[in-house]
Amino acid sequence: MTIAVDPGYITRKDDYIRRLRRIEGQARGLQRMVEDDKYCIDILTQISATTSALQAVALGLLDEHLQHCVADAAALGGPEADRKLQEASAAIARLVRS
Amino acid sequence: MTIAVDPGYITRKDDYIRRLRRIEGQARGLQRMVEDDKYCIDILTQISATTSALQAVALGLLDEHLQHCVADAAALGGPEADRKLQEASAAIARLVRS
Amino acid sequence: MTIAVDPGYITRKDDYIRRLRRIEGQARGLQRMVEDDKYCIDILTQISATTSALQAVALGLLDEHLQHCVADAAALGGPEADRKLQEASAAIARLVRS
Amino acid sequence: MTIAVDPGYITRKDDYIRRLRRIEGQARGLQRMVEDDKYCIDILTQISATTSALQAVALGLLDEHLQHCVADAAALGGPEADRKLQEASAAIARLVRS
Repeated sequence: MTIAVDPGYITRKDDYIRRLRRIEGQARGLQRMVEDDKYCIDILTQISATTSALQAVALGLLDEHLQHCVADAAALGGPEADRKLQEASAAIARLVRS
Repeated sequence: MTIAVDPGYITRKDDYIRRLRRIEGQARGLQRMVEDDKYCIDILTQISATTSALQAVALGLLDEHLQHCVADAAALGGPEADRKLQEASAAIARLVRS
Repeated sequence: MTIAVDPGYITRKDDYIRRLRRIEGQARGLQRMVEDDKYCIDILTQISATTSALQAVALGLLDEHLQHCVADAAALGGPEADRKLQEASAAIARLVRS
Repeated sequence: MTIAVDPGYITRKDDYIRRLRRIEGQARGLQRMVEDDKYCIDILTQISATTSALQAVALGLLDEHLQHCVADAAALGGPEADRKLQEASAAIARLVRS
């Protein structure tokens, strides 16, 4: 059983790390913008872009999680399947509200 | 006229830089989580926290921008005031939709 | 096979209809507020409450859809399971972005 | 002083009422969809459309509120201007988070 060692998103791991590294760079760029007294509206535009990039990563991870981890658990059924589905629903609610 | 050299949020500059540095650290932590095959749901929780932190920075900057830059422009009136208000509305729309 | 005739949320149908009727009432109340020149900020507060109520309905329906329809399809496997999962992911993305 | 009797959005009152009536109709349509056991994903798509329509109304009202009410208060200055700006910031925060 490989579920425990292999998270569902592993096939695109490098892609996610690269996107998160870019988000880290955006957060560093934002500090520089504040430091350099850049215009507030330009900083806000950059924050919106960073938030969208983070959301896109989250939606990608969630999609892979549903397709692999949740689907596998659902195929097995039982309380573990219920737990995985409740956990996914709670994560979706946090994303929608954040 | 100090508007151009002094962005409205300057009084809390250190606070914003510190918060953005923490967000940068969260983005770095997210890369490590993916690298280390952490559980997908835990990564999603961390992304929601990072998104909320970014939104809180944006709302703080926007509030200061309205209180200083927009209010000063509105007090002067004229096309510059209109432009600042339209610009602020567009930034708010981007935040609400991102 | 009961999936086609029985959507997953059927157990709480009355509850959803009652909540949506309340949302309809909120939309009617908003028209009255505009009609009566109510204060803009009070109208915005009411819109935020209505949006949150709609989101809560969406999250509830999505949870039931995942627990029933998607879980059943995943248990059967095959292209139908893939299609259901992709469809759910697309709906989640629309919710997060709306 | 006309601020108290004339909310800032009055020029487009009919437009807002018409849009809110359409949103009311969408909420009624949603009840029918649940009643008729429509497919869950189709209901979610319709909820996302309704939420976006509500957000567009909110952004329009907020824009007019900033351009009229807040700008007028800012031009007068004093504690009333501060209060109006804080109130607007709080409404923006509720919109971003809802």
